[in-house]
Amino acid sequence: MNFPSRLIEDAVNEFSRLPGVGKKTALRLVLHLLRQPQEQSRQFGEAITRMRNEIRFCKQCHNVADAELCNICGSHKRDQSMICVVENLRDVMAVENTNHFNGVYHVLGGIISPMDGIGPDELQIESLLERLKTQEVREVIMALSPTMEGDTTIFYLSRKLSPFNIKVTAISRGISVGGELEYTDEITLARAIVNRMPYESFLVRG
Amino acid sequence: MNFPSRLIEDAVNEFSRLPGVGKKTALRLVLHLLRQPQEQSRQFGEAITRMRNEIRFCKQCHNVADAELCNICGSHKRDQSMICVVENLRDVMAVENTNHFNGVYHVLGGIISPMDGIGPDELQIESLLERLKTQEVREVIMALSPTMEGDTTIFYLSRKLSPFNIKVTAISRGISVGGELEYTDEITLARAIVNRMPYESFLVRG
Repeated sequence: MNFPSRLIEDAVNEFSRLPGVGKKTALRLVLHLLRQPQEQSRQFGEAITRMRNEIRFCKQCHNVADAELCNICGSHKRDQSMICVVENLRDVMAVENTNHFNGVYHVLGGIISPMDGIGPDELQIESLLERLKTQEVREVIMALSPTMEGDTTIFYLSRKLSPFNIKVTAISRGISVGGELEYTDEITLARAIVNRMPYESFLVRG
Repeated sequence: MNFPSRLIEDAVNEFSRLPGVGKKTALRLVLHLLRQPQEQSRQFGEAITRMRNEIRFCKQCHNVADAELCNICGSHKRDQSMICVVENLRDVMAVENTNHFNGVYHVLGGIISPMDGIGPDELQIESLLERLKTQEVREVIMALSPTMEGDTTIFYLSRKLSPFNIKVTAISRGISVGGELEYTDEITLARAIVNRMPYESFLVRG
């Protein structure tokens, strides 16, 4: 693509480095910004720069934070004796959006994936064990994706946690609420039959 | 959505103001930037801010420019006596990408569209007439979209240009090269039959 301006070319190149953004989309976004008031583009640019420069990670749960502790770890309203283990920030937000968990988190920063060269040492596992030693923890809930890598990580973690004599659970698996039985894959359906739950547990409303 | 950090929330909000970017996509992009080296996010933020602050518009053709004149108007390789009238910057780039036009441009900054409240006074029409008075121009090519608004604008401009005794042309209309006849809409096909062209003109290779 020939650009009439070096400045536009730079901006388009930066946008097109983002995942899922090609040159054409990048150009559309840049031209949009160009039509907006100058103030708005300034804000946009600054928000990005500031976000990356000032962001910190919670020293307790490794979630992103504005201070030494994240909002969740720092809140006295949260049950510090329930730790939900998640892969990353996005999963923290997914669990938070359910409004059905009032404990705290531990962000692993990934899951064990030999194919991608990620072993247990790359993850925040040591600091989880450290938390269990120093804090009073009642339950650790594994909220990891039900994939091969997620299951491997759960297995590894449960072995590491066994000496602590803490209740270790994992989020339940089965057919999606609102999903149609006939479109559910066989593996999920088979496991849902084997791991059937007492009817009363379905009465919790989300 | 609950954000664990004010900085992330700000960045997500800024991204989600862009056209076609929702909150979820914005979050995905922000988290991507967070995983990149700090330098890259800084570059991204700066490119946007600088683009908007330093961008100028060519005083001759109103295209975006890094200096007083844009690259095209300032080039001695371009034929200054051929003016291609386009709606906006994106159309300049579209024509440039064909590599089949060696003249200069005139960017109207829109097309006449009463529905959107855009009349001739909102467009760079006066300055086009001024160019025709002061420069030696051989031909004006209308490269506007073949829509109701585009046709209105061409009609208006051709009336304004008639006193100058300059050749006024418009880009040709017909079926797309590589398109299938049976999928061409009736209006385009009907006009293509009426406005049929000498066979030799098809031998130009793009």
